[in-house]
Amino acid sequence: MRIPLDRQSTEPLYQQIRSHLRQGILSGSLVPNTRLPASRQLAHDLGVNRITVENAYSELEADGLVFSRVGSGTYILSPNPLPQVPKTSSIVPWPLWQQNMQARNAASRPANPEAMLKAAGHPNPISFASGISDTRQFPAEDFRKTLQTVMRRDGIASMDYGDRNGYAPLRASIAHILASQGLQTHPGNILITAGSQQAIALVSQVILKPEDVILVESPTYSIAMELFRSLGFRIVGIPMDSQGMQVEKLEKILQQHHPKLIYTIPNFHNPTGTCLNSTRRRQLIVLAERYNIPILEDDFVGDLRYEGRTQPSLKALDPGGQVIHISTFSKMLMPGLRVGFLVAEGPVYDSLLNFKRLSDVATATLIQRGLEAYVTVGRYQAYLRRSCQIFRKRRDAMLAAIDRYLPAGISFDPPQGGLFLWLRLPEGLSAQELLPLACEEGVAFAPGNSFFPEGSGGQDWMRLNFVAQSVEEIEEGIKRLGKAIRSYPQHPHIFRSIPAAPKEP
Amino acid sequence: MRIPLDRQSTEPLYQQIRSHLRQGILSGSLVPNTRLPASRQLAHDLGVNRITVENAYSELEADGLVFSRVGSGTYILSPNPLPQVPKTSSIVPWPLWQQNMQARNAASRPANPEAMLKAAGHPNPISFASGISDTRQFPAEDFRKTLQTVMRRDGIASMDYGDRNGYAPLRASIAHILASQGLQTHPGNILITAGSQQAIALVSQVILKPEDVILVESPTYSIAMELFRSLGFRIVGIPMDSQGMQVEKLEKILQQHHPKLIYTIPNFHNPTGTCLNSTRRRQLIVLAERYNIPILEDDFVGDLRYEGRTQPSLKALDPGGQVIHISTFSKMLMPGLRVGFLVAEGPVYDSLLNFKRLSDVATATLIQRGLEAYVTVGRYQAYLRRSCQIFRKRRDAMLAAIDRYLPAGISFDPPQGGLFLWLRLPEGLSAQELLPLACEEGVAFAPGNSFFPEGSGGQDWMRLNFVAQSVEEIEEGIKRLGKAIRSYPQHPHIFRSIPAAPKEP
Repeated sequence: MRIPLDRQSTEPLYQQIRSHLRQGILSGSLVPNTRLPASRQLAHDLGVNRITVENAYSELEADGLVFSRVGSGTYILSPNPLPQVPKTSSIVPWPLWQQNMQARNAASRPANPEAMLKAAGHPNPISFASGISDTRQFPAEDFRKTLQTVMRRDGIASMDYGDRNGYAPLRASIAHILASQGLQTHPGNILITAGSQQAIALVSQVILKPEDVILVESPTYSIAMELFRSLGFRIVGIPMDSQGMQVEKLEKILQQHHPKLIYTIPNFHNPTGTCLNSTRRRQLIVLAERYNIPILEDDFVGDLRYEGRTQPSLKALDPGGQVIHISTFSKMLMPGLRVGFLVAEGPVYDSLLNFKRLSDVATATLIQRGLEAYVTVGRYQAYLRRSCQIFRKRRDAMLAAIDRYLPAGISFDPPQGGLFLWLRLPEGLSAQELLPLACEEGVAFAPGNSFFPEGSGGQDWMRLNFVAQSVEEIEEGIKRLGKAIRSYPQHPHIFRSIPAAPKEP
Repeated sequence: MRIPLDRQSTEPLYQQIRSHLRQGILSGSLVPNTRLPASRQLAHDLGVNRITVENAYSELEADGLVFSRVGSGTYILSPNPLPQVPKTSSIVPWPLWQQNMQARNAASRPANPEAMLKAAGHPNPISFASGISDTRQFPAEDFRKTLQTVMRRDGIASMDYGDRNGYAPLRASIAHILASQGLQTHPGNILITAGSQQAIALVSQVILKPEDVILVESPTYSIAMELFRSLGFRIVGIPMDSQGMQVEKLEKILQQHHPKLIYTIPNFHNPTGTCLNSTRRRQLIVLAERYNIPILEDDFVGDLRYEGRTQPSLKALDPGGQVIHISTFSKMLMPGLRVGFLVAEGPVYDSLLNFKRLSDVATATLIQRGLEAYVTVGRYQAYLRRSCQIFRKRRDAMLAAIDRYLPAGISFDPPQGGLFLWLRLPEGLSAQELLPLACEEGVAFAPGNSFFPEGSGGQDWMRLNFVAQSVEEIEEGIKRLGKAIRSYPQHPHIFRSIPAAPKEP
């Protein structure tokens, strides 16, 4: 290898060698995976000291352009894009222990309506399929400034582990917010989690073993069910009506299945949008106590109420240690910040804290500190008031659009809060089969079947998120949905030729 | 209730009522948990419209100073400190399902040497007990600026979910860093986790069920073992010597115990500081393939080498999909930022990604974006070089101090890198019994017994972290340790009267 060196230059020789090789690698003239000359050889060729070549090589290694194998030499890396992993499953089979995972992965992967919508290629797609609030309203710039202030104020402590159960002032703020909602608790009973999903994961794993039975509303939050299935729990559903879980049927189910946990969403339920009525709340607590079964209360949007009377949370009715309450800031903040919390009393709190420590040590304190500075009780209440105003209008826009554009035979209960409208299609229509047609029209929804624990049923239901789109988008989206529905019964033969829903990567 | 109102003021009446009540609550003259007058009554008393009173009340509720119970009235909250949860375990027993957790929590809680040290009250305590690097060196101010730039650049996207397997440019950077260490991979095979602890939790849960056997080095990283125990796995230890795991004994153990996973720390092992030699690395891979057992390679400080030759990582020797590699930025960055990663190929990657999604959806993208902007390959290498220089000096300082201050009969292998020195006490001494004495002298270490899977053994070992303290602190700390050791054999009777180690809260 010949490298032109300028011995009069102020640039050290090793830097000249490095620059030359760097250019060769970046231009592709030096081919990835070939070996560079041994340092002794190149030093001889160039008439320089061997150390000079070795310095150049280690700089290149630091740049990620070459790598050295002990006893074997220095090799050129592909600069960009990175080298593909040579092995692919089509050439050599994966180890035996991996092979059954392939089938399991395929079976457990849920349909993704938003990916289907994207794949359909409509120029202006509208999705009602999302499970989260409208994130476009989040004041990112305010939060940036708050985080700056916090990092300037707290210095290196803002990046430390901090308390394992969460940043203490944030737990105090949460206790105040909960108190303003009628739930009296103490910061020492609050555990900060990586979103409410982690709270569900921690609680269910601390309380249940594989093969244990967990009771859920039927239908319920699909990702909680996916988690329970992946942990090997047996899921038993309790039927719902317009007043929430049919608690009258609970006692018989308790006697029959001996569940270890009741998972419930009493407020603005996902997917149905219903609220558990006050009588049933009290009955549920009484039965849980009598049968010694903990309740996991998922209150993900309990305070997004647009009308009607607030019910006390189950936790507020808890005689002591029976209910574990979980919630999240995701409705107010960006869900990507991943901060939720749980409230629990008694020995189970320590068990949860310990399992959190073993799962991921603690939730990043930096975001917690930013959140604490940003979320005061007053700001939280102001944000809720504003959100409720906007979301109420969007709900009304969706109800009006449904009235205008969807055919007769559609039925639903108008929700008094939350994010979701749960809609039943006319007899004989399948939401899952309708979905590809709707995506073609440029609108997506969450088909109902994935929310049912039995794995079947719910074919004629769909969940519509009415908060994530503007009033105009809602009008247009429901119009498109109406068009898709009207085109459906006339073309039942289409569905046999439509390929399966694209899956999440 | 009488509230002075100024009807000529520009301040609205409801604001005047609010201010008056607010002052009363904050001053304590309005006692928490008492009920405010019904709005109708107070409106009558003050001669104002009922709406005026209701507005004042709802502002107070938004301030977190009162709360209303539907149908029951408006109650005063304690402004600060928050009300204690009325129930304590001494008065009413916890629900039955919680009662066995109390005993389990007590049994699973490990001794905490740093808490013991703090409790001992020495004016200038020195801890060698920590499991992490020296965080005082972290350039918090640089990272603050980087995060600012990122948030300005990316706006709301910096707080979004992003890719579920992690921020793509960060995964590309990691692939480059790994390539510079001789491990060729692809960003699509990297999964970002909440620290390496979460990576261990995800891998072990995806591969094992309760009652399955996991092989670990004996001794090994204690918190991994705590996790495995809490998940119901059976832990079997493989003995170690100065060259790492005794792979010659592995085949017999594989035949006898049929493990589902081998968890190993081949580089600068925790707690022993040893490296697996090159022959054993190759044998380990061959046996894992032959017996169809995945390897989880925990490479938490593999690149902190102060002398001697780098060994290829197990992942670099992997014929394809047999090894899952995990590592972390915690040695370079603040561990409280909670970003680690794993490298896996084949169907197990999708299983891990799915279980990550069900566990906590994704790791906060904000920190990942900051990290990506901060950690370039060049900066990483420069940081490593600097750290290795500093840490080598600290290791040498500890070796010299041991030579100077500790009695004969102490034995150890000087580590070539990493964080830990693994030290054996003279025959008959127990590290656990020595610990309270050492804490009295103002120095702490990690007693060896907690690192052994068998639950017994290792009494005469201790782990010393030699990177977390300055050279002067190391000198002083080892001097104190020597004093504690010399006082110990003369006072065996002391130990019967020393109370048990304080536990973590």
